[in-house]
Amino acid sequence: MGGYSTQIVVTENFVVSIPDGIGLDIAAPLLCAGVTVFSPLRHWNAGPGKKVAIIGMGGLGHVAVKIASAMGAEVTVLSHSLSKQEDGRRFGADHYFATGDKQTFRDLRGRFDLIINTVSADLPIDNYMRLLNLDGTMVVLGMPEKPIDIRPYTLASYRRSLSGSMIGGIAQTQEMLDFCAQYEIGAEIELISADEIDNAYDRVVASDVRYRFVIDAATI
Amino acid sequence: MGGYSTQIVVTENFVVSIPDGIGLDIAAPLLCAGVTVFSPLRHWNAGPGKKVAIIGMGGLGHVAVKIASAMGAEVTVLSHSLSKQEDGRRFGADHYFATGDKQTFRDLRGRFDLIINTVSADLPIDNYMRLLNLDGTMVVLGMPEKPIDIRPYTLASYRRSLSGSMIGGIAQTQEMLDFCAQYEIGAEIELISADEIDNAYDRVVASDVRYRFVIDAATI
Repeated sequence: MGGYSTQIVVTENFVVSIPDGIGLDIAAPLLCAGVTVFSPLRHWNAGPGKKVAIIGMGGLGHVAVKIASAMGAEVTVLSHSLSKQEDGRRFGADHYFATGDKQTFRDLRGRFDLIINTVSADLPIDNYMRLLNLDGTMVVLGMPEKPIDIRPYTLASYRRSLSGSMIGGIAQTQEMLDFCAQYEIGAEIELISADEIDNAYDRVVASDVRYRFVIDAATI
Repeated sequence: MGGYSTQIVVTENFVVSIPDGIGLDIAAPLLCAGVTVFSPLRHWNAGPGKKVAIIGMGGLGHVAVKIASAMGAEVTVLSHSLSKQEDGRRFGADHYFATGDKQTFRDLRGRFDLIINTVSADLPIDNYMRLLNLDGTMVVLGMPEKPIDIRPYTLASYRRSLSGSMIGGIAQTQEMLDFCAQYEIGAEIELISADEIDNAYDRVVASDVRYRFVIDAATI
């Protein structure tokens, strides 16, 4: 019966346990967005002393800000405008810059150890890569349709890397949930009932959601 | 008086010592090609248990094969044709594949931990990237004029990275020379006298050199 079932038999290897500290509604998006950002933040050692930038503060990005901040990294949001700046600060961002402003790319050149790119649109990646410091890495999570254009010199100078990451395995999903419970991290959601799905869908298409819709399965 | 001087005063911090074990003629190209390939091989931990591919077996590539082999890695040469295969084996390559043969890209998919790309021409990088295994890295040393096109999915699947590297510092240059002396590694050269420079230049342009010309400064 799929995701709307109330009971289902599964192999225990593919079950995660939601810790008591997180409500089921704010935990739900963590199983996708949460582990998708947690995995690269862990792999590339986000933590104290590391300067981490998050490109885009949507469904993935806002969770990335919370988790990277909880890991102890210095977190910067790179968003098209400053419209969500107040939210960003509340989620734990130390800095917030508008990428619609060219000055941002001059001010932040060579700044970051790690950039998590959560945007699926075609960005001028080479410009963002130059914001990386020595041995810095940009991790692409969004899947834009077009290939990324990157200048070899941008990589060779400062020995920068461009990489990507998928979601994460079951073990890491559990680790992420335990981490989020410890730091009281949940996704920012709007809880809707089943009869609001059509409207919510239209709002997702219009990017009008802060930051995830969650359907209350009890209303189905 | 520049590079052809017989005596010159320099700051000791910028002097390297050529170990007795290496002839000056075969050491000369190591100061450029040698450290350019040694640096990324060290940084990305080429060694026992690591599968390393070298794209291109020219001035840089042939030294990369020797050094990666001496480091204990399993070394594969990816060259346009098999014309230099015998040389490659002699330099220490375990495998040698022609990239002009499409089957190569099918046979080697997901094979390598590290690919050192020494070619300055515009290659279909995405095809080569798919030869990387989990967490594998391609390091670009050549500087093709056009930006590199890379599909986000190629990076995200297997968490592959594309990176680059410049030359190396003085300390690492000395480390490279000591390493080469220990493993009796020199560049493959043709030693020429000063009056052969014009002809040698034409042969370099025509890619007709195996693998570096060295000018005997005593003939100037």
